[in-house]
Amino acid sequence: MIKRLAILGSTGSIGTQTLDIVRNFPDRLTVAGLAAGYDTALFSQQVAEFKPRFAVAANGFTVPGCPSLSPEGMSAHPEVDIVVIAIPGDAALTSVMAAVRAGKIIALANKEALVSAGELITAEAAKNGADLRPVDSEHSAIWQCLVGESTRPTRLILTASGGPFRTYSPIELAAVGAAEALRHPSWRMGRKVTIDSATLLNKGLEVIEAHHLFSLPYDKIEVVIHPQSIIHSLVEFGDGALKAQLSPPDMRLPIQYALSYPERWDNNTLPRLDLIKTGRLYFESPDCTRFPCLSLALQAGRQGGTYPAVLCAAGEGAVALFLAGQIKFTDIAVVLERVLSAHIPIVHPLITDIIDAGHWARDTVRQTSEKERNSR
Amino acid sequence: MIKRLAILGSTGSIGTQTLDIVRNFPDRLTVAGLAAGYDTALFSQQVAEFKPRFAVAANGFTVPGCPSLSPEGMSAHPEVDIVVIAIPGDAALTSVMAAVRAGKIIALANKEALVSAGELITAEAAKNGADLRPVDSEHSAIWQCLVGESTRPTRLILTASGGPFRTYSPIELAAVGAAEALRHPSWRMGRKVTIDSATLLNKGLEVIEAHHLFSLPYDKIEVVIHPQSIIHSLVEFGDGALKAQLSPPDMRLPIQYALSYPERWDNNTLPRLDLIKTGRLYFESPDCTRFPCLSLALQAGRQGGTYPAVLCAAGEGAVALFLAGQIKFTDIAVVLERVLSAHIPIVHPLITDIIDAGHWARDTVRQTSEKERNSR
Repeated sequence: MIKRLAILGSTGSIGTQTLDIVRNFPDRLTVAGLAAGYDTALFSQQVAEFKPRFAVAANGFTVPGCPSLSPEGMSAHPEVDIVVIAIPGDAALTSVMAAVRAGKIIALANKEALVSAGELITAEAAKNGADLRPVDSEHSAIWQCLVGESTRPTRLILTASGGPFRTYSPIELAAVGAAEALRHPSWRMGRKVTIDSATLLNKGLEVIEAHHLFSLPYDKIEVVIHPQSIIHSLVEFGDGALKAQLSPPDMRLPIQYALSYPERWDNNTLPRLDLIKTGRLYFESPDCTRFPCLSLALQAGRQGGTYPAVLCAAGEGAVALFLAGQIKFTDIAVVLERVLSAHIPIVHPLITDIIDAGHWARDTVRQTSEKERNSR
Repeated sequence: MIKRLAILGSTGSIGTQTLDIVRNFPDRLTVAGLAAGYDTALFSQQVAEFKPRFAVAANGFTVPGCPSLSPEGMSAHPEVDIVVIAIPGDAALTSVMAAVRAGKIIALANKEALVSAGELITAEAAKNGADLRPVDSEHSAIWQCLVGESTRPTRLILTASGGPFRTYSPIELAAVGAAEALRHPSWRMGRKVTIDSATLLNKGLEVIEAHHLFSLPYDKIEVVIHPQSIIHSLVEFGDGALKAQLSPPDMRLPIQYALSYPERWDNNTLPRLDLIKTGRLYFESPDCTRFPCLSLALQAGRQGGTYPAVLCAAGEGAVALFLAGQIKFTDIAVVLERVLSAHIPIVHPLITDIIDAGHWARDTVRQTSEKERNSR
């Protein structure tokens, strides 16, 4: 039984690595659909190589001979078994909802959709028999540790590398530039996620994601800094046993697992862990004073409603400003806090409320930054 | 559904800890039978507290009002659901075979039975639908990591504390006395197991046990020294993912899991791991030059036949000589090697051949040591 994939975001980091896995398993995986952004050269190459049934890139760009279909259309198409959501940001939301409503298997690499609209997505998934599978290494680790356990866990421990500035002083943090922040010590990822890893905003988003994926209250989800990025997360049970998933940091493993589950497929192109060479594994508490984005995210998660959507959108806006050199690294948290404080939430939002909250947050980030530039 | 236990070896380390678990779950566990050794005072207390249907201690000692039944009889009794085998040494073999033939759930804390007669025991277990559950922390960890996995692992990594003499030089090792060797850094265990942990013979026996329990060839089972005894073992799959089970070292967890499986029971008397306080976890290769018992055991395992039975019995004999002050710590390996070299194996042994090989090995250890004492 060959599995037919729609890969949304095929030219990005997760998209290209997903296609690597497809190359490893030509008799188990096939590409039914590809959707990409602005890298139309790579997109055209991918269409030529994988010959999908349909394909589309940004601004409706298509490849001659390959029919066009919107990302939402692919997500619900009857000839698609697994929808790989590798679009960054809240642009993924409508595709995730389409896939969930169509009862698909969803390999979810996007964080923002679940963070912003976790309750709506998980409710629709349950209603339509959709299968939400995490592609994030942390959530994949938790999922792998929960496989076969009939008793609910009592605690989830998400590990965080701590980012490249783990040991920086507040003064050093304020001076961090974009180029420096884009060099992550252990993971190869997209630009937005890399900056979010450096601020720990990413880990806050992951806690919210874990809350929705594993239906556990926030007080049972912890974050531990583990700079080696070898233990990808841990799960604790009521008898005191912890289970952990380990591997060298490589996103192709959680991608493959989301496609192979419940099986595991032999793949010698994936790296093996050598515990002896790895040496020491260590753990420390996250410092929310130097990395306030983490506590801002956790607070937004606990508040619920439209706050997490504002968190995501304001985070995107703030990171864009930082990457454009318009605000300092430490101002990302300042912007986030300002926008979250100004937000008037909707407690039980519909999808449109969530999208509106995102627009409001992005506008607010832009206006605030323009006002500040003008007042200088 | 209350589970009825027969606990063989109730006054030993595993036996008393099993009864601790029974005390924690009076509505889930009950004691149907108790069998003990020479600690008749503790045995009598246990019978008074747990009021088993039948009970017996060494030399046929019984408690008035509680009928006597042999360990083998308890192992096969229809009113017993789970047989806890906590008798040390190859004395457990006949009880294990009785329980396996009766198709029981067996919580196996004894190593020697499976090491000596692994093929016979696992074949009988398969034939009679018996369920062999490990109580060793390492094998329990592997079992916990395999739960729910439909694909066979590609590698098992057994962790070893390395014992109290991990960093000793050969000269220091030769001077180790019994009292010193009985102080294990992380585990509270019986005397024989504690010495075997110090020589790494224990880890060799565990590799053989893992080979039989998880049907994996020896070249897929590794040993890694992990002095903190926090990661109890790891499992690797064909996609490069490793799963590990962690907890503070406490035998009550693997005991409880063997009784609660497939559930996990909330138990706040079991310790919780604090990763931050734990600090660094590290790993190194075992040194078979300073700890030759490990390679002797692995060799005996690979050779199979009656060699593992000889390994167990000669190990018991050699440790007894060491504890009696008759041989040096480093002579344990010398005695083992001498007896294994002198053995003429039976390739496909019956249970009686295995028992005979054990007797031969014990006699040979005794004779060799007497000869040496006389020649001094």
